[in-house]
Amino acid sequence: MQFATPTEVMQRALSLAERGRGYVEPNPLVGAVIVDENLGLVAEGYHAKFGGLHAEADALSKIEQIPENSTIYVTLEPCAHHGKTPPCAEAILKAGIKRVVIGCLDPARHNEVTGVELLRNAGVEVEVNFLKSEAETLLRPFRKLQLTGLPYVHGKWAMTLDGRIASKTGSSQWITNPASRSHVHKLRGLMDAIIVGSGTALADDPQLTVRPPGPRTPARIILDSHARLSVNSRLIQTIDEAPVLVVCREDVSAEIQKKLVDAGVELILAPVNYVGQPELSIVLKELGRRGMTNLLVEGGACVLGSFFDAGQVDEVHAYIAPKIIGGGAAFSPVGGTGISKMTDALNLEQSSIQQFDGDLLIHGFIPNTFGQGETA
Amino acid sequence: MQFATPTEVMQRALSLAERGRGYVEPNPLVGAVIVDENLGLVAEGYHAKFGGLHAEADALSKIEQIPENSTIYVTLEPCAHHGKTPPCAEAILKAGIKRVVIGCLDPARHNEVTGVELLRNAGVEVEVNFLKSEAETLLRPFRKLQLTGLPYVHGKWAMTLDGRIASKTGSSQWITNPASRSHVHKLRGLMDAIIVGSGTALADDPQLTVRPPGPRTPARIILDSHARLSVNSRLIQTIDEAPVLVVCREDVSAEIQKKLVDAGVELILAPVNYVGQPELSIVLKELGRRGMTNLLVEGGACVLGSFFDAGQVDEVHAYIAPKIIGGGAAFSPVGGTGISKMTDALNLEQSSIQQFDGDLLIHGFIPNTFGQGETA
Repeated sequence: MQFATPTEVMQRALSLAERGRGYVEPNPLVGAVIVDENLGLVAEGYHAKFGGLHAEADALSKIEQIPENSTIYVTLEPCAHHGKTPPCAEAILKAGIKRVVIGCLDPARHNEVTGVELLRNAGVEVEVNFLKSEAETLLRPFRKLQLTGLPYVHGKWAMTLDGRIASKTGSSQWITNPASRSHVHKLRGLMDAIIVGSGTALADDPQLTVRPPGPRTPARIILDSHARLSVNSRLIQTIDEAPVLVVCREDVSAEIQKKLVDAGVELILAPVNYVGQPELSIVLKELGRRGMTNLLVEGGACVLGSFFDAGQVDEVHAYIAPKIIGGGAAFSPVGGTGISKMTDALNLEQSSIQQFDGDLLIHGFIPNTFGQGETA
Repeated sequence: MQFATPTEVMQRALSLAERGRGYVEPNPLVGAVIVDENLGLVAEGYHAKFGGLHAEADALSKIEQIPENSTIYVTLEPCAHHGKTPPCAEAILKAGIKRVVIGCLDPARHNEVTGVELLRNAGVEVEVNFLKSEAETLLRPFRKLQLTGLPYVHGKWAMTLDGRIASKTGSSQWITNPASRSHVHKLRGLMDAIIVGSGTALADDPQLTVRPPGPRTPARIILDSHARLSVNSRLIQTIDEAPVLVVCREDVSAEIQKKLVDAGVELILAPVNYVGQPELSIVLKELGRRGMTNLLVEGGACVLGSFFDAGQVDEVHAYIAPKIIGGGAAFSPVGGTGISKMTDALNLEQSSIQQFDGDLLIHGFIPNTFGQGETA
């Protein structure tokens, strides 16, 4: 196989990296492609599984002898530290590769000597920030967790064309069609946890499982100040399929706590904020501490609103069904305080559209607030 | 020019018909294509202007001698009555055309003898309902006005990805980008009137003119129970550019009425319904009586809600900007009573998407309630 341009080589590395999504977290998605001096493919690899080979090592493992004047394209700066696996920068040196092209720098440098420095000090030619924007997009969840200690949050909702997630009576089944709902399950299967509010849990009695199962089995987290979740709920009835965590106030009675714990629920007792809700920043910190990288917040409106108000939504998945329900008392997807001036609206970046049998999915990124990529 | 299939011929006739949009109303959009026995193009035409040649006559006018065994494809049943122009069915006979393929039948037959009968009685072979659905879609506004006496209503709104038309403070400028707003002006230029509520008129002080001008200059209609519109509003200040109609209660004081009339406004005094608003069905009947075919209802939420509640919205144009404003108190596009059960939602037919620099337009038809096409 032959690449036409260096851009094509890096695009291949990016698409290889993508294959690890859902499997490698909390590690980063990384892809690597080794080409000879004519951009002919020598070997390629990617980080496929948490604890498994890094992308560079995976690519290097596939060939005995690297041709002279080969270049390795890697979406993320090779590591320079001894972690679960030996440092990739050293493996690159050992393989005799003299040129390295890097998508973006590692936001989580563990050593004083970075991968780039280690390579350059050994006389390797290093180019950085090649397709940087694409490489950083791939790395957003990893970057947020590394830089802030907080999980990366996906906001998801399904609404009618008149912007409603439920009618005035709360009726919401179903807004979207089976193809859209099946896509939601694919999304869920990439997550560490799914979060809903107690209102949604009580009104819809959802399972929030992944059907069919995906790469990950997300925990199901209920923001439930007063721990009202019933042990007869489908969430708790399916507790063998995926963990259920209830985030509630510290002052919930010991009796209620015991009942839930006995049913297999894990409780996260959180201090409350000024409106009596568990303080979101503390909850997120705790989930980040557990290494949770991707959270899917599925609603309802108050919960999505509180995540937006806290500036903690990083990516949006909005499903829209071409139907109208109307009604001044119908429910909208994002509650909370919101913004006042239209000029202060959050503009999605890289927004894109997918269609599912007439339904739409609009996907995009919220401009990040957790640090831009560094430059070498 | 040669067509590959009869379907292609009719599609050409449909796209010719489309060229008359905005110019022919309250007449129907009609296109016609004459082909020889090998589907070679002989002549084509369309109804281009109110009072001008009908599509069939336009096509026939372009050629002296029709080849033997020619067929005319026409999107709508040829007329059999003497109106502004001689009956097309007779012109077809006179031209010696022996075969006629018709998209859909005329919902507004003026004579006891229909066009189809007149042709068949004269020995012409007539095929009807060819691409009927497409032909009827083209004819929706004409059909509604003919069958019900009421104008065809387009509901239009611009909302954020979280389904809001304004922030909690009422801020709404601008939700969509210049490319979307420019498209709205193209839409306006096809309409007989633009309708907004007094809330929108007072809050936004809009002009509701068409910039740049399009085929039609729509009247600007304000649903304004108490006739609160100021003579200093941009609507009245631009009254030389397009008429302003204020729909208000019959009991508005003579003084207020005089002030508006003196400023050039036309008043429509309407009886009120049980919530004190001008009765929509009476307003629509009056607009239909004036031959208004297409109305664009631009909001706000209460007005759009009342049109939906009355089952009077026929087509939807929803612009969506990929941005989030949030806020439980922000405004949604369609108010009113709305439906209760999600299964009762209005499903758009033939929904389609256009993109404008990242904004979306979702367009579709509300299943019609004003009679299906007849069969011959």
